[in-house]
Amino acid sequence: MTKKVFKLADEESRDAYKLLSGLVVPRPIGWIGTKRSDHSNNLAPFSFFNVISSNPPTVMFSAGRHPDRPKDSAILAEETGEFTVNIVSESVVEAMNHTSGSFDHMTDEFVEAGLTAIRGTVVDAPMVAESPANLECRVVDVLALGAEGRTRVVLGEVVAVHVEEAILDGSRIDSSLLKAVGRMAGMNYIRTDEIFRVDRPE
Amino acid sequence: MTKKVFKLADEESRDAYKLLSGLVVPRPIGWIGTKRSDHSNNLAPFSFFNVISSNPPTVMFSAGRHPDRPKDSAILAEETGEFTVNIVSESVVEAMNHTSGSFDHMTDEFVEAGLTAIRGTVVDAPMVAESPANLECRVVDVLALGAEGRTRVVLGEVVAVHVEEAILDGSRIDSSLLKAVGRMAGMNYIRTDEIFRVDRPE
Repeated sequence: MTKKVFKLADEESRDAYKLLSGLVVPRPIGWIGTKRSDHSNNLAPFSFFNVISSNPPTVMFSAGRHPDRPKDSAILAEETGEFTVNIVSESVVEAMNHTSGSFDHMTDEFVEAGLTAIRGTVVDAPMVAESPANLECRVVDVLALGAEGRTRVVLGEVVAVHVEEAILDGSRIDSSLLKAVGRMAGMNYIRTDEIFRVDRPE
Repeated sequence: MTKKVFKLADEESRDAYKLLSGLVVPRPIGWIGTKRSDHSNNLAPFSFFNVISSNPPTVMFSAGRHPDRPKDSAILAEETGEFTVNIVSESVVEAMNHTSGSFDHMTDEFVEAGLTAIRGTVVDAPMVAESPANLECRVVDVLALGAEGRTRVVLGEVVAVHVEEAILDGSRIDSSLLKAVGRMAGMNYIRTDEIFRVDRPE
């Protein structure tokens, strides 16, 4: 096989984005709920998101830049010290997509997308009632990357997990019932209900 | 829908792992290549891995703990300041799984799994020739999490990207040809060749 080599220092930022978002797939979606100082709600999806540790239980999401500042979710998480992660299943994928639009600063995306906001039990940030699972998180660190630190990587300790009882067996999740959706490049997504198994080596 | 609430401070670490790895899906797989001080090669897969920025182009992987220390990949990346990410397609999933086993400290996993190691063009870490794409990375930061910092989150700037020409159209990746594999809970994986599209809101 012949490979083409891209030296990223020589590429446009747009091409680096296309290469990385096309190759590092599938990505889980963190649908991040935060609260504004006036107590209204903010909700937006991020796929530069993942678990980074289970002990202590920790997740991270990275918020790229609007033209001149990090996205609201990162600013609000940093200001309030709290956020929620709402799991995106097939049943809420259209609503999730709706909340990825560019709204006015003060728009409540829960209202825009017809979703029900409920407060966390440990943190005072909004959760999506319609999601099959929600994580309540406390910010433990924020990293700044890039020119003027306009990209923020928010690390949060997961203090509580809410899971629809029908998809649980003890602490095991039935992925065929969860039906989480993964992010591919562009406007493309994949389903996760058809798994295959590879037995771990001895 | 009725949800069960888990306060993670009250749960066993094993249960936190099962909940988070079952809910935050599908995860991309970073198959991390590093070099030892004797110039032998190390290769192991991580699914606590993702892009965190495209400008500057940056990825991260998190290495959990062996009984008493972070996994070799994190130690070696930190020591040498370099690592590669090798994309796991269906064609190399068995080899990837083979390298997830617990090997002796000095084992060359490329040899164990019958893979061809080639040196990077910018960094001196080994790449998997059989992978459809490879990222060459320079370590820019390492975070320590948990008791005695035994979990390490390694951040790397992507300095070069190698992509099989047949799956490229400019800087766009054809995911139906890439056939990347995603990580679910346990020993479960998913394919990514059947996408669906959701048009972005106006």
